[in-house]
Amino acid sequence: MIYLDNAATTMMKPECVVRAVADAMTSFGGVGRGVHLASIAAGMAVYRARAAVANLLGAPGASSVAFTNNATMALNIAIDGLLAPGQRALTTAASHNSVLRPLFRLRDTADCSVDIAPIAADGSLDFEVYAELLKHKPALVAVTHASNLTGDVYDVARMCAMAHEAGAKFVLDAAQTAGSYPLNMAEIGADVVCFTGHKSLLGPQGTGGLCVACGTEIAPLLEGGSGTHSYDERHPLFMPERLEAGTLNAHGVAGLAAGIGYIEGTLGGPSGVHEHAGALAQHFADAVSGVSGVKVYGRSDACDRGSIVALNIADVDSAEVADRLASDYDICVRAGAHCAPLMHKALGTQSQGAVRFSFAAANTVADADAAAKAVREIAHAVGQGC
Amino acid sequence: MIYLDNAATTMMKPECVVRAVADAMTSFGGVGRGVHLASIAAGMAVYRARAAVANLLGAPGASSVAFTNNATMALNIAIDGLLAPGQRALTTAASHNSVLRPLFRLRDTADCSVDIAPIAADGSLDFEVYAELLKHKPALVAVTHASNLTGDVYDVARMCAMAHEAGAKFVLDAAQTAGSYPLNMAEIGADVVCFTGHKSLLGPQGTGGLCVACGTEIAPLLEGGSGTHSYDERHPLFMPERLEAGTLNAHGVAGLAAGIGYIEGTLGGPSGVHEHAGALAQHFADAVSGVSGVKVYGRSDACDRGSIVALNIADVDSAEVADRLASDYDICVRAGAHCAPLMHKALGTQSQGAVRFSFAAANTVADADAAAKAVREIAHAVGQGC
Repeated sequence: MIYLDNAATTMMKPECVVRAVADAMTSFGGVGRGVHLASIAAGMAVYRARAAVANLLGAPGASSVAFTNNATMALNIAIDGLLAPGQRALTTAASHNSVLRPLFRLRDTADCSVDIAPIAADGSLDFEVYAELLKHKPALVAVTHASNLTGDVYDVARMCAMAHEAGAKFVLDAAQTAGSYPLNMAEIGADVVCFTGHKSLLGPQGTGGLCVACGTEIAPLLEGGSGTHSYDERHPLFMPERLEAGTLNAHGVAGLAAGIGYIEGTLGGPSGVHEHAGALAQHFADAVSGVSGVKVYGRSDACDRGSIVALNIADVDSAEVADRLASDYDICVRAGAHCAPLMHKALGTQSQGAVRFSFAAANTVADADAAAKAVREIAHAVGQGC
Repeated sequence: MIYLDNAATTMMKPECVVRAVADAMTSFGGVGRGVHLASIAAGMAVYRARAAVANLLGAPGASSVAFTNNATMALNIAIDGLLAPGQRALTTAASHNSVLRPLFRLRDTADCSVDIAPIAADGSLDFEVYAELLKHKPALVAVTHASNLTGDVYDVARMCAMAHEAGAKFVLDAAQTAGSYPLNMAEIGADVVCFTGHKSLLGPQGTGGLCVACGTEIAPLLEGGSGTHSYDERHPLFMPERLEAGTLNAHGVAGLAAGIGYIEGTLGGPSGVHEHAGALAQHFADAVSGVSGVKVYGRSDACDRGSIVALNIADVDSAEVADRLASDYDICVRAGAHCAPLMHKALGTQSQGAVRFSFAAANTVADADAAAKAVREIAHAVGQGC
């Protein structure tokens, strides 16, 4: 099997990640729920994981990192907790539904307004229109670091500076970049960075979280047991417990820390991963770009490039191409809408969807070549009417 | 180490659970995020887990089970999604903060009212007062199946029938009973049952969920990627996707299914676990009840009994007793408030907290005897002024 669906989830986790989770499952108590060794072991592991995330992503410190189930939950918490009723938000058409739907929810239920900066047909953001929309004085700007469809990486430092200039808080969706592309929260200036653990950070599913800048106060979306301050009627407001309710997934978080250790110790850090997987994506894109009937999306010169290539073959439904790749070539990719509806509108692929090839550190040039060969063969067959 | 903090989390997961999670971490794609084998394997595992939970807890079927990070998240979703602004809710003083705080949040932010049925000093619920409070016509009754402090199990079938009679929806917090005490959603008549995976269900941390009765429609609290219906502006409203946003923790859920299989195949089901662990708790309670200076809480004749025993020794801070148990005897228990503030008020233990011994299938009579001996020795030393 050639696995090129890493933007959905990385499949074969490093051995150290599997071992860390397995060890945790036979030795951890609940975090912050006891004074005994099993509980302390869990607490120490979670603290180390917070510190590892903060160090990797340039967050202020361990206590600025709150863990969630996935990036979606982190984005729901950040958006719901920063946008007050009646306020305005700004996002871009490159956003995933994990940004769009929480915003639309507040539009429908809390009288908020949502502006959406358009993306051009080549996948790029028009900064002039973005600047115009900032004149509406949004309280919150929430955008993606890289399109989960095209892999195009946006200049979020510039977007953040402009958002701050306009008086908005800046929330960054780093689901497609944390671990696989250089990302420093402090350098970007973001108020919140939302990440997922199970993609490029190589951790288990069920992990993710948000890094919160000093002075940014997010109203908790979930409240419950906090292990301390139990007599307060409402959830405590100090970080990171503020954004965590109930028993933390310390088993998963131990694996996440191991994944980060593997990225830093073995893979050369996010820039090393980017150098490898981004090069594979470019190699694949170059190999299929000239093929008759193949259209590659995004990869605009206005954007940097991640490790994703989205394409279509003639007018064949993207799901059919993914089916052929899976059944005839044992190549795993993703087709369809990728939860990025406005991006498809921008690219003109609403009905066809797109076939997404996403590369990771574990992939090889042979994988990229095999995928390119398969695309060429399918395109040829389609050209022959098969 | 003698681990008696199973009400916080069960520590040593069965080998089959560890193996299921480890296998998933090297073979699963994202659930509902692809047509390839890795994604299908994850989807099938999650479907089997839904069916296993439904079968164990008497829920309508696999699609009635939505997975969350833990019981707290499930309770937040159920309470927030069923109680409309301005409506009234009823709970009891036995509730955990995972029920109380979501209710108080809606009281403070959505003009809701919250009534709390008192618990007597012996831990029992006064059904006459409960009936009186139902006359306020709450839209929602949310209660715990068993106190996480005393282990006392309430007659929730009776409470549910009375709630329905009064026109309220009935949400059951089964964090302390799912897997370790007989619980049939259909027999109880509950509209929602919230459970956690990492306690008596023997699954990994990061798992939990809610079972939703047919006809009960919970407004989603979290919205985002759903894998299907990506062009809809808001999250889809069919179960179980309705209450799940973003990538599901299929790794953890595979372990949860293995835990349920172990309970049913090896431990004789929840009633087998109850028979064993409940008997250990009773054996321990009997052994310490007559000891000078020891006060055992709850265990009222009006309630059935789970596998928890809460006690104090003279007026010694509960945290100090837990410290001595950990450092002098290597016995893991939990002290303090246990996120159950109103229960401590009812028992008169607000300042002292209580020491909680919670038993599981993995414990033995020798564990209970060792714990009883330790309590006797500490009580004796305290009696001597040490």
